[in-house]
Amino acid sequence: MMRLWTFLLLLLATAASAQPIRWQEQYPGVWKGTFGKPDNYTLLSAAGATPQAATLERLQSVDFPLPKMEVHAELIDGKTYLRFPLQKNEQIYGLGLNFQTVHQRGKILNLHVDHYGGKDNGRTHAPVPFYVSSRGYGVLVNSAQYLTYYVGTGVRKDAKVPAEVKDRNTDKSWNSRPYSDAVEVYVPTEGAEVYVFAGINPLDAIKRYNLFCGGGALPPKWGLGFTQRVQKLYTADEVIKEVAEFEEHGFPLDFIGLEPGWQSKAYPCSFEWDKGRFPNPAALVKKLADKGVRLNLWTNPYISPESPVSKAIEPFTGSHTVWNGTVPDLNHPDAKRILAGQLSRSQIDIGISGYKIDEVDGYDYYLWPDMAKFPSGISGVQMRQTYGVLAQKLTDSLYRQHNKRTFGLVRASNAGANNMPYVIYNDYYSHQDFITALVNSGFCGVLWTPEVRGSKTGEEWLRRFQTVVFSPMAMINAWSSGTKPWSFPEVAEKVKYYAQLRMELMPYLYSEFAKYHFEGTPPFRAMVLEEGFQGQTNASLNNQDLETNPYLEAVNKEVKDQYMCGEYLLVAPLFTGESTRKVLLPKGNWYDFYSGRYVGNGEEIVAKPEDDRIPVYVKDGGIIPMTTARLHVPAAGEKVNLVIRHYGEKEGMYNLYDDDGLSFDYEKGAYSWRRIVLKRNASGKLEGDISAPAKNKPNTIGTVKFEFMGQ
Amino acid sequence: MMRLWTFLLLLLATAASAQPIRWQEQYPGVWKGTFGKPDNYTLLSAAGATPQAATLERLQSVDFPLPKMEVHAELIDGKTYLRFPLQKNEQIYGLGLNFQTVHQRGKILNLHVDHYGGKDNGRTHAPVPFYVSSRGYGVLVNSAQYLTYYVGTGVRKDAKVPAEVKDRNTDKSWNSRPYSDAVEVYVPTEGAEVYVFAGINPLDAIKRYNLFCGGGALPPKWGLGFTQRVQKLYTADEVIKEVAEFEEHGFPLDFIGLEPGWQSKAYPCSFEWDKGRFPNPAALVKKLADKGVRLNLWTNPYISPESPVSKAIEPFTGSHTVWNGTVPDLNHPDAKRILAGQLSRSQIDIGISGYKIDEVDGYDYYLWPDMAKFPSGISGVQMRQTYGVLAQKLTDSLYRQHNKRTFGLVRASNAGANNMPYVIYNDYYSHQDFITALVNSGFCGVLWTPEVRGSKTGEEWLRRFQTVVFSPMAMINAWSSGTKPWSFPEVAEKVKYYAQLRMELMPYLYSEFAKYHFEGTPPFRAMVLEEGFQGQTNASLNNQDLETNPYLEAVNKEVKDQYMCGEYLLVAPLFTGESTRKVLLPKGNWYDFYSGRYVGNGEEIVAKPEDDRIPVYVKDGGIIPMTTARLHVPAAGEKVNLVIRHYGEKEGMYNLYDDDGLSFDYEKGAYSWRRIVLKRNASGKLEGDISAPAKNKPNTIGTVKFEFMGQ
Repeated sequence: MMRLWTFLLLLLATAASAQPIRWQEQYPGVWKGTFGKPDNYTLLSAAGATPQAATLERLQSVDFPLPKMEVHAELIDGKTYLRFPLQKNEQIYGLGLNFQTVHQRGKILNLHVDHYGGKDNGRTHAPVPFYVSSRGYGVLVNSAQYLTYYVGTGVRKDAKVPAEVKDRNTDKSWNSRPYSDAVEVYVPTEGAEVYVFAGINPLDAIKRYNLFCGGGALPPKWGLGFTQRVQKLYTADEVIKEVAEFEEHGFPLDFIGLEPGWQSKAYPCSFEWDKGRFPNPAALVKKLADKGVRLNLWTNPYISPESPVSKAIEPFTGSHTVWNGTVPDLNHPDAKRILAGQLSRSQIDIGISGYKIDEVDGYDYYLWPDMAKFPSGISGVQMRQTYGVLAQKLTDSLYRQHNKRTFGLVRASNAGANNMPYVIYNDYYSHQDFITALVNSGFCGVLWTPEVRGSKTGEEWLRRFQTVVFSPMAMINAWSSGTKPWSFPEVAEKVKYYAQLRMELMPYLYSEFAKYHFEGTPPFRAMVLEEGFQGQTNASLNNQDLETNPYLEAVNKEVKDQYMCGEYLLVAPLFTGESTRKVLLPKGNWYDFYSGRYVGNGEEIVAKPEDDRIPVYVKDGGIIPMTTARLHVPAAGEKVNLVIRHYGEKEGMYNLYDDDGLSFDYEKGAYSWRRIVLKRNASGKLEGDISAPAKNKPNTIGTVKFEFMGQ
Repeated sequence: MMRLWTFLLLLLATAASAQPIRWQEQYPGVWKGTFGKPDNYTLLSAAGATPQAATLERLQSVDFPLPKMEVHAELIDGKTYLRFPLQKNEQIYGLGLNFQTVHQRGKILNLHVDHYGGKDNGRTHAPVPFYVSSRGYGVLVNSAQYLTYYVGTGVRKDAKVPAEVKDRNTDKSWNSRPYSDAVEVYVPTEGAEVYVFAGINPLDAIKRYNLFCGGGALPPKWGLGFTQRVQKLYTADEVIKEVAEFEEHGFPLDFIGLEPGWQSKAYPCSFEWDKGRFPNPAALVKKLADKGVRLNLWTNPYISPESPVSKAIEPFTGSHTVWNGTVPDLNHPDAKRILAGQLSRSQIDIGISGYKIDEVDGYDYYLWPDMAKFPSGISGVQMRQTYGVLAQKLTDSLYRQHNKRTFGLVRASNAGANNMPYVIYNDYYSHQDFITALVNSGFCGVLWTPEVRGSKTGEEWLRRFQTVVFSPMAMINAWSSGTKPWSFPEVAEKVKYYAQLRMELMPYLYSEFAKYHFEGTPPFRAMVLEEGFQGQTNASLNNQDLETNPYLEAVNKEVKDQYMCGEYLLVAPLFTGESTRKVLLPKGNWYDFYSGRYVGNGEEIVAKPEDDRIPVYVKDGGIIPMTTARLHVPAAGEKVNLVIRHYGEKEGMYNLYDDDGLSFDYEKGAYSWRRIVLKRNASGKLEGDISAPAKNKPNTIGTVKFEFMGQ
């Protein structure tokens, strides 16, 4: 009898530990799964992410994209084990801002907010626990804990696909990586919350994810202009002088970034102006505004004992300090209130346009240890995983109160903050890795800039500048080097050309960001998200020295050095020392951006650009709305004249976005899409047309001309 | 009333979570601390570590070495937070087999068994959670979980030492690493077990730790001879031919290592001889034994479906496979029994002398994921942290049953396995890092060999060979390269010289290992454990490019390229490309090993050895018992004649260890210490004397001569 009871109890316990995930459809193609007892505080709750419900509701209904019976959840050793099936030849992308890899299958990632350390091991600025499958679905684990992902590495005894056992002694086809049929995730809590996003293709799944997190960020127009961050100890006078220099050089400039020296104390921070270097900040802001230039301020969140808020905020700070400054509990209403008060009074109310939120990522020895305690009750780990998100939310909310969009920088983010208008940057500087991060940013709902800081040669300066203008934030960060765009005279003209090109492309870029917000389509994204892109995904065993790699890993080639900038532009950067490179073109005809000439179709070509240009190609039928080069984005109410380029042969249409470029009124409907149509007339000649401006909506478009690059 | 109850309950809960550690003295200078609910399965329980109680009891009583009030334990977020105070200028050593650093203060280590990955971040073959302080005490956290150590990095608001807050904007003395006064440890369980070891100096604390874990390993004499591992697909005939070649070349050889090809299947393993390559293993063993050569066999634990034990052991294997082989639960009595049976029948019973236990470390994508389940009930994490220990225990126990000592290799170990006769090795190959690992091995109770595999030049071959003969295992691992000691003819004579020197030093090395076992003194250890060693421990801020290191880390020099080999020998390796180097000598007179010449006292000297020698120095009064060069260690019962060298001027004494060199009879008292005394006679001349052999104890010493190197 005792045995029977014991047996029944065991059965119950096992049943409880292997309870299935409870799935609930949230929107067409969006399911929420709950297992056990998930944390209350999560990535999505930290971000306050609110889905774009109306848009999501209108999406096409899709089946649950995985065989539900093969999605497994189990409590093991007090932690939640999640398993999602993989098929052969299925590739996985995402899982955070990786700098060296695009293909994540076969990787093990310990997702942990940190400054990137040189290896794609999960420690990165935005270790987003969202992955996208080549089969067209995405999976998000909504947890603010440190998560371990085994992306098709573990092989279970009871796996469906039988093991192909080989004898390494004699079988040359022995593979050190046996086939694995699942993504396995370990969540160190007694439950978890999962979201599955379906789609007709991977990009479609990503769009659902972005929409679910509130849509992508829509920057103010000025945020997409050019920005220069000045040397850290600049004074107000030096800033004014800098602006004048930009004017003299005829170089575009929309906002200047002030580095730590604007504060009276930094590391840790006072959050108040240094009276010596900035005796009259309000006057400075106004003077710059009159010249069409805004100001962005560097800060980190660590509070100096000499800050005016230091005493008041102390009860709402963590147990440990960072650079001897207290750590405000950004999850605590009082800490937020006090800090927000200081930021408002001292900076936002006088017209500062944004922040660069530094050092919210790592390293471990700078920030608080995992066991640090915070008054709001979340753990040191949860705070680490969401501190960048909380900092973005706090500052962004202050601008929302002013009905003014901001655009800034941050060094850590996570899932749910997709709609936050901040761009990630870091202290690393490998140009190749910077581009791979840009490629990956589109998978995880973050923005990344391959900022330009210094260079050893003019060639390097140009190459870096060329990619930063094809990125979310066109920036030179001269906090230390003091370099100017024209610091390398031998390439100064070419650098200016690209800064001007950035301004000319503004209507296109702004519309692509609008699509990020309204449709969830990331403006900078990987080639694999393009229809008809083959890539080079064949694994091949290279001859390797057994001494250094005794396990003969199969090397999987992936495309990490070219990306899509918006719907039509394919950017294939050249790095220092290169004058030529291979470019992989997706299926369809592609055309040179500069000349309009046809270059290829679904093949690998060799780019040998003239004039040290960066190779850029345009999809057939590409419609690129451009404007004339200018020093600053249009002022409020100003109309700009457009030149709309068409490339290739195809007919097509493009929705051009229009709003006031400054406020949040678009959230209440103060925007419009102007429909551009390219069609062949009766004689077979391409003709362009744009719909009339919408009544009672912001209209910033003047005259419209069409330029047919294909003729 | 409700409020009062709530308050009282809160008070109780807080009290419970901040309960002090319960300390109990185990032996003089050894305390066990218990907090909360520690795991039942721990590092010490996995190793079955049994203290050398009699020796420990006789040690001098010492005070608890830390201010108990400052040792803190607290339950935070379901995990145990431990804190141990640090003083200014206190340095911390240990915390595992690190390859690039000796000083651990300021480091953050996530202790995790893994193949070393190129960075001292806690992932290493023996991530031993034991640290030693320069103030002369050690702390062990006895947990088989992944532990996070913040070794003087976290700064608490309530720290005793007030923060020195500086403004980075203007203060050039700003330091990116504020002063931290504690070691903080996070143990992911609701309790922990801690051991504190006191001592009059750091070495004394280490000795207590080693004795507490059973004393260090005492290898069989033959284990300290020379060993050659042959190419993986060698046949029995090729092995015999190899032995003959060694004889022809007059090159020492005590055991040969067979690599995976001895098995019929490998990766995963069959654990049975390949009939084609080894038709008669028992005959081979005997033939080699007649020539004074033993055999060691490579294996990893992963079981091929074609292994004779595969079916029987399947119910006692883990949920996941490794290289498509099942993973025996080495914590399960049935798995152990079945595997032990196969090893005994097939290998040990026919006279195989030991194993090389491979791939019990990592990488993560080879081994099982953390959530893997094992029938014995320990977690995938606990299994990972102790698998190497369990494998050592299993094989060592089989040799104990035969009353024969073994000496082998293993690629993972941990605290508690200090008495296991296995030497760690890996696939890495930086010679400098290999030496640093050797330096660190003495802190954590493990043995490490900087094995020689291949080389690009004869110079490299010689340099690597010179250090491996001054290490626990003098080995060439030619599993892939097939190199022989004489493969580089230009250095063949010098290589042979050092192999012979290894054999000549056998009496000294064997006695030093005996001291490891009986006294806990690690035979290979860091310079900082020498009395009167100053080192170079001043932190200095270097001029660094702000762009690449914006936080201006203070660089702390440490000595990681020279070590002590036993009580008297200081080894200062030269690396490829070097013909000269600096050597730091501790206080006291030091003498050149080869010539006996005085070289310096408590200073930095420049070594410029002749004949491409490796710089080796001897402490004043150093007594080095040596024998004549030989091809194999003495056979059972064979007596060897000693030449006992004395260096310098000092009088002194040395305990020379003697036993049968083969069995475990020494554990029952079948050993003796022969006391060697060097004294000046009436005329002031040094004279040497050795005590008579003990009655009824093994006596392997023939004639004894003294050589006075200082005269």
